[in-house]
Amino acid sequence: MIVALAGGVGGAKLAHGLYAELPPDTLTVIVNTADDADMHGLRISPDLDTVLYTLAGIANPETGWGILEDSFNLLEQLGRLGQPDWFRLGDRDLATHITRTHLLQDGASMTEVTRRLAGALGVQANLLPMCDERVETIVHTPDGELAFQDYFVRRHCQDTVLGLRFQGMEQATIPAAVREAVASAEAIVFCPSNPLVSIGPILSIPGMRALLRDRGIPIIAVSPIIAGEAVRGPAASMLSDLGHDVSVVGVARQYEDLRPILFIDEADRDLASAVAETGARPVVAPTLMRTIADRRALARLVLAEAAPRLVGSGSAP
Amino acid sequence: MIVALAGGVGGAKLAHGLYAELPPDTLTVIVNTADDADMHGLRISPDLDTVLYTLAGIANPETGWGILEDSFNLLEQLGRLGQPDWFRLGDRDLATHITRTHLLQDGASMTEVTRRLAGALGVQANLLPMCDERVETIVHTPDGELAFQDYFVRRHCQDTVLGLRFQGMEQATIPAAVREAVASAEAIVFCPSNPLVSIGPILSIPGMRALLRDRGIPIIAVSPIIAGEAVRGPAASMLSDLGHDVSVVGVARQYEDLRPILFIDEADRDLASAVAETGARPVVAPTLMRTIADRRALARLVLAEAAPRLVGSGSAP
Repeated sequence: MIVALAGGVGGAKLAHGLYAELPPDTLTVIVNTADDADMHGLRISPDLDTVLYTLAGIANPETGWGILEDSFNLLEQLGRLGQPDWFRLGDRDLATHITRTHLLQDGASMTEVTRRLAGALGVQANLLPMCDERVETIVHTPDGELAFQDYFVRRHCQDTVLGLRFQGMEQATIPAAVREAVASAEAIVFCPSNPLVSIGPILSIPGMRALLRDRGIPIIAVSPIIAGEAVRGPAASMLSDLGHDVSVVGVARQYEDLRPILFIDEADRDLASAVAETGARPVVAPTLMRTIADRRALARLVLAEAAPRLVGSGSAP
Repeated sequence: MIVALAGGVGGAKLAHGLYAELPPDTLTVIVNTADDADMHGLRISPDLDTVLYTLAGIANPETGWGILEDSFNLLEQLGRLGQPDWFRLGDRDLATHITRTHLLQDGASMTEVTRRLAGALGVQANLLPMCDERVETIVHTPDGELAFQDYFVRRHCQDTVLGLRFQGMEQATIPAAVREAVASAEAIVFCPSNPLVSIGPILSIPGMRALLRDRGIPIIAVSPIIAGEAVRGPAASMLSDLGHDVSVVGVARQYEDLRPILFIDEADRDLASAVAETGARPVVAPTLMRTIADRRALARLVLAEAAPRLVGSGSAP
């Protein structure tokens, strides 16, 4: 079993590569839910849905999030009704949010809801939310505290980030399903997601770092920073605003206690020794995933470090 | 001020005629909410929405309910997610349900929610739910008790109706806005809606019949039964199943204590004297509304009985 930790679009790409390269029942993906939002009374889980849609093969290839060829008639009508419409919710996408919200109201856990959604969409990987409790990333900015999606979508990551906190994290617990997946894992993969607000919240669940570290299995992280820039999203400016190196070294330091194998891009070859000084073992590889083939190629390289016997074990075409 | 009582499609048509023929701020429409349903965790108010969309000029002219040229992508996706999809919810239509549910969860009353939705859609008539409490029409059938939309939509009105009850009606109260509208009304109009499950629930709110009767103003009802048949919906079979005359006389008896003026269709001219025996004053007129012009023509005839000085007072083209 391989356990991957993922946030949104970048993470979903590598998760997709792993899913294609592995027998489907050998992959667990643990997804950040700290950027979940309540919009229009509905529970939106952007990272979970991005991974879900990507693994199901229905993600919008233009944006990376949302569903392929979706329409936006409901959102347009919400705007006419005077409701906020800055968060782009497609009609088909909203079916997920409505179902999730309804099942949660009926008493199902996020783990159970996610299992049902993934099952309905034919995803055979074990897709898990990082926890069942509600945790919310709050971004401290010069204009005050912002909910993550306010910072990320409504205000286009324009605010200087003075600090981050994960509201509710003290009460969060590692779900049994996550514990079981980690217990049977032979390697852990940190997908190239934002180390501060995607992988960070997962690792901040009380006991999670110890749980991963104590297994003593390989932890392979893929840097989302290439040549000092984030492939997408605000990872670079966040690292900078918070006083971290905007580089693969800055990423390596986020995972210092876990002594990971860190995949850095060929563009960052010169930083390999600085990465090694953090206690990580650097692996230089082409890490930018533009195509589906790129996802699979990177997944094969990661698996070669994580569990060499699984390379070539996948059944996907 | 004219106060109209209405259910769904048939009622909305006459309400629309009245809206076109009156200055907009002189019409209040009180709408049945006992056929409201919770679907997918959303509060659906079919009759309110039908009247809302009809007055806003965005109703689907093919069906009478739902929004013009709506799409059904969300519903289709709900089906893929294993959720029930027998209740046809359009994408734009769902914006109403999401907004209503969200506002209710935030503590707004149905009266307030309806006011905001009507305002957002530019409806200047005073659109009111019959009450703010939840009341549910339950249909007793040989297969047991059915929620109204189960009987009406899912099972296509195929069940024999052994009885009807309005769950929660004992706790229902007349909203202040309804009381105020009735207090300033110069006539009450019962639109051609099902007397048992559309007008019936409104009149069953404790104190409502007395409130209307005690004003001593004209009550003009339009029969939804023409020549022994319902123009649409299950009114005829319901009347029959429950032992009532399936005729304008059967309709008249539902309103006996209110001594209404009852509009009956020209096809029912022969029943005028039998109607008169119930205490109603029959008016024979063409009551079938096929076109927008029909709605307005019937509205003018009704106004001639209700408030002759208002005939021709409308500003609509």
